[in-house]
Amino acid sequence: MKYSKLFGKTSKTVSSEEKIVSNKLLHQAGYIRESTSGRYFFLPLGQIVQQKIMQVIKEEMDQSGSQEMVSPVLHPLLLWQETNRDKSAGFELMKIKDRRGMEFALGGTAEEMFIDVVRKFQISYRDLPFNIYQFSTKFRDELRARGGLLRVREFIMKDAYSFHVDETDFKKEYQLMSDTYTKIFKRLGLSTCIVESDNGYIGGDYCHEFVVESDVGESRFLVTKDNSYASHEDVAVFTKQEMNLNELPQLLKKVKAKRGNKMEDGVKLHKKPLWQQIKDVMFVDEKNRFILAIIRGDYDVNEIKLKHIIKANELRHADDEEIRKIIHSEPGFISPINIKQNLDKNYELIVVADDSLRKICNAYGGANEKYQDYLNINIDRDYQPDIEADIAMAQEGCLINNKKLIEKKGIEVGNIFQLGYYYSNKMKDATFVDKNGKKQPYYMGCYGIGIGRTMAAVVEIHHDDKGIIWPEEIAPYKIHLLVLGKELKVLEQATILYNKFCKEKIEVLFDDRQDVMAGEKFADADLLGSPYRIVVSTKTLKINGVEVKKRDSQEQKIVEIDQVIKLFRVCR
Amino acid sequence: MKYSKLFGKTSKTVSSEEKIVSNKLLHQAGYIRESTSGRYFFLPLGQIVQQKIMQVIKEEMDQSGSQEMVSPVLHPLLLWQETNRDKSAGFELMKIKDRRGMEFALGGTAEEMFIDVVRKFQISYRDLPFNIYQFSTKFRDELRARGGLLRVREFIMKDAYSFHVDETDFKKEYQLMSDTYTKIFKRLGLSTCIVESDNGYIGGDYCHEFVVESDVGESRFLVTKDNSYASHEDVAVFTKQEMNLNELPQLLKKVKAKRGNKMEDGVKLHKKPLWQQIKDVMFVDEKNRFILAIIRGDYDVNEIKLKHIIKANELRHADDEEIRKIIHSEPGFISPINIKQNLDKNYELIVVADDSLRKICNAYGGANEKYQDYLNINIDRDYQPDIEADIAMAQEGCLINNKKLIEKKGIEVGNIFQLGYYYSNKMKDATFVDKNGKKQPYYMGCYGIGIGRTMAAVVEIHHDDKGIIWPEEIAPYKIHLLVLGKELKVLEQATILYNKFCKEKIEVLFDDRQDVMAGEKFADADLLGSPYRIVVSTKTLKINGVEVKKRDSQEQKIVEIDQVIKLFRVCR
Repeated sequence: MKYSKLFGKTSKTVSSEEKIVSNKLLHQAGYIRESTSGRYFFLPLGQIVQQKIMQVIKEEMDQSGSQEMVSPVLHPLLLWQETNRDKSAGFELMKIKDRRGMEFALGGTAEEMFIDVVRKFQISYRDLPFNIYQFSTKFRDELRARGGLLRVREFIMKDAYSFHVDETDFKKEYQLMSDTYTKIFKRLGLSTCIVESDNGYIGGDYCHEFVVESDVGESRFLVTKDNSYASHEDVAVFTKQEMNLNELPQLLKKVKAKRGNKMEDGVKLHKKPLWQQIKDVMFVDEKNRFILAIIRGDYDVNEIKLKHIIKANELRHADDEEIRKIIHSEPGFISPINIKQNLDKNYELIVVADDSLRKICNAYGGANEKYQDYLNINIDRDYQPDIEADIAMAQEGCLINNKKLIEKKGIEVGNIFQLGYYYSNKMKDATFVDKNGKKQPYYMGCYGIGIGRTMAAVVEIHHDDKGIIWPEEIAPYKIHLLVLGKELKVLEQATILYNKFCKEKIEVLFDDRQDVMAGEKFADADLLGSPYRIVVSTKTLKINGVEVKKRDSQEQKIVEIDQVIKLFRVCR
Repeated sequence: MKYSKLFGKTSKTVSSEEKIVSNKLLHQAGYIRESTSGRYFFLPLGQIVQQKIMQVIKEEMDQSGSQEMVSPVLHPLLLWQETNRDKSAGFELMKIKDRRGMEFALGGTAEEMFIDVVRKFQISYRDLPFNIYQFSTKFRDELRARGGLLRVREFIMKDAYSFHVDETDFKKEYQLMSDTYTKIFKRLGLSTCIVESDNGYIGGDYCHEFVVESDVGESRFLVTKDNSYASHEDVAVFTKQEMNLNELPQLLKKVKAKRGNKMEDGVKLHKKPLWQQIKDVMFVDEKNRFILAIIRGDYDVNEIKLKHIIKANELRHADDEEIRKIIHSEPGFISPINIKQNLDKNYELIVVADDSLRKICNAYGGANEKYQDYLNINIDRDYQPDIEADIAMAQEGCLINNKKLIEKKGIEVGNIFQLGYYYSNKMKDATFVDKNGKKQPYYMGCYGIGIGRTMAAVVEIHHDDKGIIWPEEIAPYKIHLLVLGKELKVLEQATILYNKFCKEKIEVLFDDRQDVMAGEKFADADLLGSPYRIVVSTKTLKINGVEVKKRDSQEQKIVEIDQVIKLFRVCR
């Protein structure tokens, strides 16, 4: 490709507010352009990278035995209604009607679609297992897009779905996909951490994220130093220690407590440790149920864990008026003790206690009246939660198996999900015929990789202050050839070399511009990030050579012009 | 690929009502499945074919200098409003709102999107010309889908857009794209006819369809035997001969005419030729304007030509009540003579006469009253049309340049459009900086190929009563290897051969099923349509060979098992 002919050249103008390096560099270098917020054009250079990433994924998926196919972009909404996901996917799901009144979902994933095509066939145990995948545009109606390709509203995803006779067979595939993903990301220049995570609206019992460690990432996860444990904050567990169970329970006492609404106000007033205070957080879910989450004062409530436990799709904090008028309690002074006594009869309230509360004695906290606190609160005796479970957010320094958790941030580039019977139990005819001729639901898994986000992650990891440093496998061009000066003979020689590369099918981007200074050409070469730079100039031609430099090295060497092709020729 | 592992096997059940061969075969052979009407899954075999078609297109487009990129699927509706296409695309355009209230179009083409990305750059005459293209999902909210992949509501299209300093430069690209398309379709096994056609809602002054002759096609076009003229019926012109201009005009006469409403009723009553009768057709457009189209009795009104002339997007026939109550005329007796005299004042009426009417004398027809006709009607003297133009539908046997037109039907697989300044004049900043530093709108063209429809066209052309006969370039697998009998040794030998093919990267589909009879395997091989069939059986192994047969030939030959790889080895 001649750079003079390329659509999408480098630009110096980028918003100074842009803090995400990958967005800045991909924009400046002419790989991407935003259409509207969260929706991107991939310019010719960006499209080559995107396709190379997809090619690597395709090769490894095919190698694993998975088969590529493709489903329509518009999913009949009826299918999403069959699994009730039209509700659980919530606001993120975009819907559209055609002129005949038929409703469609712009899918974020395609479980229902793939089951729908599979059930068009009579599947027997002999046909199982199989894994089918596609590359297709996915939609997420995010409230906020950010960071270029990191969180978008529209993107190409590789999504795969596997079908099995049982869990044992599925587990082999889950491991195979995990290994395949590790291979894929390695080829793309990314080292990934496999992190247990939440399944969001996908369903199923467990899943794992593939995370690239990076400060710009949105995935907060916790690992032990030896990597024996790695979990997303949404699901990370930790050991909750017994604090003072050796103490004797004291009598429950109500005391005056002229204090502010914050946890530290309680600490100050009662001169007791924070962990001994009960933290009370009142939520409302999408069915207008009230949920009082209570937990040790120095822990935070993990809303994802809480949602799963109470089977809610959405949670919001109750406001002061609701707490006063419906619960008849007082903000800052909520207590699980007798909390349901004054509850408005039209409402439901569920008290969920973190299991940490059973490991402390003589706690203190509000008394459902302004300026009144209880001292010596003890579980079972003084209050009886409806549910007792782990609803705590893990923190740096917490212990798991006697090892300290370390907090990290990263970019989620892929994930794998156990689905089990989550979909096949809900959807009609999602069955295979077993050895005895009986219809059985199949056991499933699904596996996704976001292409654009992966591309951004590569740039986050592989760049310097001058620009991108592409791993060879996905560089848009292997060689950035540039010619310096306006001498006709030099341009001629460079063009001959360019033509030779083209003839040998060695990917080369030829900066043939005549109206651009050397400095700008060098800067553009660094910004664009091809693995090798070759310079042809009056100077190099004097010694019948060209200058070759690797993008990620300072070393430059002169190679004889007739030998340079050999250097890059690869066996095909 | 082992057939036993393949998702999407052959099926015998297909609706007996299905008359489109490509739909029947692609369904039966397991290449495609309908999701909802007009939206298709491409199963693993179908996806390979689709990708191979795209690869051929990509290679030829790249060869022509065009550059691949990709735009978002959701187009900001604001862009379509800039060109007013949100209205002209009419019902076919699907629209959607996101949760923030922003409106998007599910595009059928992407002119506005590509201009929008181009105008994000400062383009100068030095950057021009360029041609950028994408493969992306397109949407058409068709009222009726039909015929499998022939007319769908969602499909992958290769759409390209070229940008030029002027018309001269554009014309070179138009010719290059035309040649490129011919090459592409030839590689895909399709011989195409280049047919002048209507631009629909794309705009611009002229365009051409690439049509594959086929009785199942929806494109009706007219060609001369020597192919010097080829036009879609929407735009085909022909010589309108003078009929009786040697006659003297007679006095206009109103006569009683107790006749039916049809043209032949007039012929019978007045005993005059059909061509001498005036055919009056009353239309209503989307702005509620009435349009009276009048034409020689033996010709039909071409609504597409009429729409262009009166600049309407939609036309429908006026109903009897409208003709009586608004026009104050009578169905079957409409006449251009004094037609506006009794018109309801709230309405507008435009009389459009086909230019054939000037070539006849003493015509006859209705008189705007029931059972009243006029005789000896002559243009100018008796009626004065608002517009006189060609609004006639060409027919088989009509003449052009003294050559007879032949009517043909075909499948439109691609098209190329001159756009000129149609878009760049409407959209802000759709300009480049010329040599004098002045901003000028660019001159444009666009070029489309429908992938699925092309695939269907290939099957329509390349099949027999047993199944598909894929051209080698796009066959999902080059070789269909099948093993007969249950003897372990035979299966072993076949598997060794299969592994050798795989190792050499020769594409092979291995029918390794053990529970299927020979007849079914042969039938499936024919149905699936790989170019070569190789049989390994007890019989062939006895003479240490395999049986090789081309799909499109009856001849079978025995090849030594050790030599068969050599036969298919290709230089890479």
